[in-house]
Amino acid sequence: MFELLKTDPGSKARLGRLTTSRGTIDTPVFMPVGTQGSVKALDPRELLEMHTQIILGNTYHLFIRPGLDIITGAGGLHRFMSWEKPILTDSGGFQVFSLAKIRKIKPHGVEFRSHLDGSLLFLGPRESMEIQRVLGSDIAMVFDDCPPHTATPKEVRAAVERTVRWAQECREQPRAKGQHVFGIVQGGSHGEFRESCAKALVEMDFDGYAIGGVSVGEPEPEMMQAVELTEPFLPATKARYAMGLGTPAQMVELVARGVDMFDCVLPTRVARNGTAFTRKGTYSIKGGSYKADFRPIEEGCRCFACARFTRAYIRHLLNVNEILGLRLVSIHNSHMYLEVMEEIRRHLGQGTFSEYRQKFIANYIPTQKVLATRGQTLVRGADE
Amino acid sequence: MFELLKTDPGSKARLGRLTTSRGTIDTPVFMPVGTQGSVKALDPRELLEMHTQIILGNTYHLFIRPGLDIITGAGGLHRFMSWEKPILTDSGGFQVFSLAKIRKIKPHGVEFRSHLDGSLLFLGPRESMEIQRVLGSDIAMVFDDCPPHTATPKEVRAAVERTVRWAQECREQPRAKGQHVFGIVQGGSHGEFRESCAKALVEMDFDGYAIGGVSVGEPEPEMMQAVELTEPFLPATKARYAMGLGTPAQMVELVARGVDMFDCVLPTRVARNGTAFTRKGTYSIKGGSYKADFRPIEEGCRCFACARFTRAYIRHLLNVNEILGLRLVSIHNSHMYLEVMEEIRRHLGQGTFSEYRQKFIANYIPTQKVLATRGQTLVRGADE
Repeated sequence: MFELLKTDPGSKARLGRLTTSRGTIDTPVFMPVGTQGSVKALDPRELLEMHTQIILGNTYHLFIRPGLDIITGAGGLHRFMSWEKPILTDSGGFQVFSLAKIRKIKPHGVEFRSHLDGSLLFLGPRESMEIQRVLGSDIAMVFDDCPPHTATPKEVRAAVERTVRWAQECREQPRAKGQHVFGIVQGGSHGEFRESCAKALVEMDFDGYAIGGVSVGEPEPEMMQAVELTEPFLPATKARYAMGLGTPAQMVELVARGVDMFDCVLPTRVARNGTAFTRKGTYSIKGGSYKADFRPIEEGCRCFACARFTRAYIRHLLNVNEILGLRLVSIHNSHMYLEVMEEIRRHLGQGTFSEYRQKFIANYIPTQKVLATRGQTLVRGADE
Repeated sequence: MFELLKTDPGSKARLGRLTTSRGTIDTPVFMPVGTQGSVKALDPRELLEMHTQIILGNTYHLFIRPGLDIITGAGGLHRFMSWEKPILTDSGGFQVFSLAKIRKIKPHGVEFRSHLDGSLLFLGPRESMEIQRVLGSDIAMVFDDCPPHTATPKEVRAAVERTVRWAQECREQPRAKGQHVFGIVQGGSHGEFRESCAKALVEMDFDGYAIGGVSVGEPEPEMMQAVELTEPFLPATKARYAMGLGTPAQMVELVARGVDMFDCVLPTRVARNGTAFTRKGTYSIKGGSYKADFRPIEEGCRCFACARFTRAYIRHLLNVNEILGLRLVSIHNSHMYLEVMEEIRRHLGQGTFSEYRQKFIANYIPTQKVLATRGQTLVRGADE
């Protein structure tokens, strides 16, 4: 399924290609998140125009609404949402452990109450794989136990053991035609847990491996560490996916640490508050200084929003709550994420990734929030 | 500016063409409403794809936000919103009389408090025309006094007198290059007021004439009557515009009564509640019966939404509050309005408008709300 085309001499970065029955995916790749069957505010045409190769869907959310009957009736998730390219589905493990109310962990899964209407539901390896089979995703994820950042070592150990046992159960379930399955490595920031979890999963020979238990509230250094502690135990011949990450600068750094695949809600989530991602960091288009700024969101950007509309116009739309405002920022941000990945692939191909990485990180000003987790404070204004 | 190409032998319907410096407009025409500089939920590309010929902007709203400085800086409203085709701007009269708080009518306009922040503002013929000049619209409307449906005959008479006086003031103001100006006939449902207002305005020789004081809460028969009482006094050689109207069936009937231009917020407003317009009337896509309905919003429709997405999918999106849901219904509804106008023009050209009208009205089931104003009740289900 995965072809390793080139490895960067100055880092662990890799240029690769994933093959699915719905087409190939050049890696490193960013996957826009379509949790509930729609990448928020965007339509499939817009996603194709920004060269989206694969999107994410979510087992937990789609299982609750619209439910499997509807998606079966539609002929699977691709046809339901009118998206012909590959889809990766998350297993629902993360949501069960973060969203659901009153959960009870049982040997073969989790009994929980729907975050929506409180109804009693059960998700485990068998159920999750069955749902993902019905959704018909091109890449399914195993059902894992994803503990919070605050979990004790004992809790993390139990989560790893459960994750490994459930991965084996997932491995044995039937799959949709052509469906690949990725294992998920848990283990928090504990090297020994990461190692044992990775080794046990590699033993089961999955089609790819995800690093889970990140994007669960941990500081940036711990997140980087979790990846560094896991990567050495993952086979070079399989794709590696860092779940739920990150900012553009974090993605560049994670590529340098050997990660091939990313998904993140940030580009569309912050867009709805009027925050734009640029190569210099983020800024709020709602800011008064953009009132009469007739430049595009990011100068030099070729996205649909930047090709036609100004900051002044988009700021006005956001101020008067016009839907087009958040649509345009969502387009720009998603395009920016995808374009950074395109640039990374080009530089990996040309052997200039180290220079690209250095320049990107030097230009990119992280948010106060990210800096705080590094123990740093901001020295320059982030608003360009 | 207006060329009358053909008159229907069986009604007062007219086929025509409006010429502006930004292109010609085939009439009868529907103008999507972009009150605050955006047709709600849609982007300019989507508007062009559904063959939008002209859109509406609003003086009152754009004056309050973003304000004239910003639009001047952008180089006018067309460039601000990235729309190159014609724009008609409403004068703000309707909004001052319906939205603004604590207004005081003065000889040369209205002093009022912004509905937004309560600041004291003044709009009159001079100010409205100046704003419309800055906006740079292709068709500007005179600043009128638009009384509510409940106004007494005395109040309506005063509104007509003021409207005529203010129209004269508007007539004398400088205009943007190539800008046309339309007069607005008031007079409620009083034949003598409609006649005197129309005659006084025609005397001033405007580029076109609007029928105002409709869409102010009146029952449908009164609305039709207001048009019927006005139309005979409008010159055949000028375009006639019925302001703020209506449902698709009402537009067909108003075309038959000699109206050439329409604008209405209904297609995008009801879309945001999940209501779709079809040739059979409206229905709520949120209805449980569409849960597993894999047909497009309207069978046979070629809009972007109907070409790719099903009722079941759109219903799901609306239920989980995904923005794409209301985008798709807004696209369909606006496309439907524009396509009805295309069909009307084709049938007028072919001399088959009477048959089209008859068939359209027979198929179209009005809402309970419209039927109630006719003193009728619904006999069939409105959901197709």
